[in-house]
Amino acid sequence: MSTHGPHRAQIKALLHEYVSAVHRKDLDRLMACYSDDVVAYDMQPPLEYRGAHSYKKAWATVLSTADTFELEMREPRIYCSDDVAFVHALMRYDMQPTEGGRMQGWFRWTAGLRRVADSWRIVHEQSSVPIDMETDRALVDLQP
Amino acid sequence: MSTHGPHRAQIKALLHEYVSAVHRKDLDRLMACYSDDVVAYDMQPPLEYRGAHSYKKAWATVLSTADTFELEMREPRIYCSDDVAFVHALMRYDMQPTEGGRMQGWFRWTAGLRRVADSWRIVHEQSSVPIDMETDRALVDLQP
Repeated sequence: MSTHGPHRAQIKALLHEYVSAVHRKDLDRLMACYSDDVVAYDMQPPLEYRGAHSYKKAWATVLSTADTFELEMREPRIYCSDDVAFVHALMRYDMQPTEGGRMQGWFRWTAGLRRVADSWRIVHEQSSVPIDMETDRALVDLQP
Repeated sequence: MSTHGPHRAQIKALLHEYVSAVHRKDLDRLMACYSDDVVAYDMQPPLEYRGAHSYKKAWATVLSTADTFELEMREPRIYCSDDVAFVHALMRYDMQPTEGGRMQGWFRWTAGLRRVADSWRIVHEQSSVPIDMETDRALVDLQP
């Protein structure tokens, strides 16, 4: 995989941009990380978001209801080739809503990427926490 | 991506094998779809399974408590290059436990794959349902 060093560096820069855009609550910069045809399996319903247009509305709501929103990707694992890549990481969030108490915890994040016109973009994303199968409770308090 | 036709066919065969192994409750055939160092973000805790050895125990429990277990991958989207690929799909499950009532529903499935020694293997997997952020309930009844 050593031949893919430049791609790996570009993908790391994209991941940094993603986290930074959330920190700055900059919706346009965040959405520039995604391809127009992104299919997202988000923490929130529906089962899937098809296309950046619908996913942008979800992110707009999230960012507009946060006073502060920090993400930290723990040791992202990057697999890449010339034009297809994927990344997974445990992600720590620390969010202070405009109303209500501070929210902190961990979720799992997987992103599928494509390189188009020399730019890497997220074409697929899944974010989740595990669930307790007996009670259907989301396990939002798990630690790595 | 047309040059990757043979890879795409091999990945489709792997997906078919995965679903078929679950249907047959054949743990060894199912685990042969994974690389030894797979990192899985499963529906069930913990946050992550590291390595096929630990993930096999989880699958063994699931398969041993199912009378019947059917999976159906809806229109899997495959992105592949020569040695890295990822797949995502909404997955329908229909499971009759050995004790208790039939369980049916949909979850989101993302898999990261690598080709090693001419064989594609799942090196990463995430499965989940969305959650209701207000109540922390897993939304197990959503339809596509």
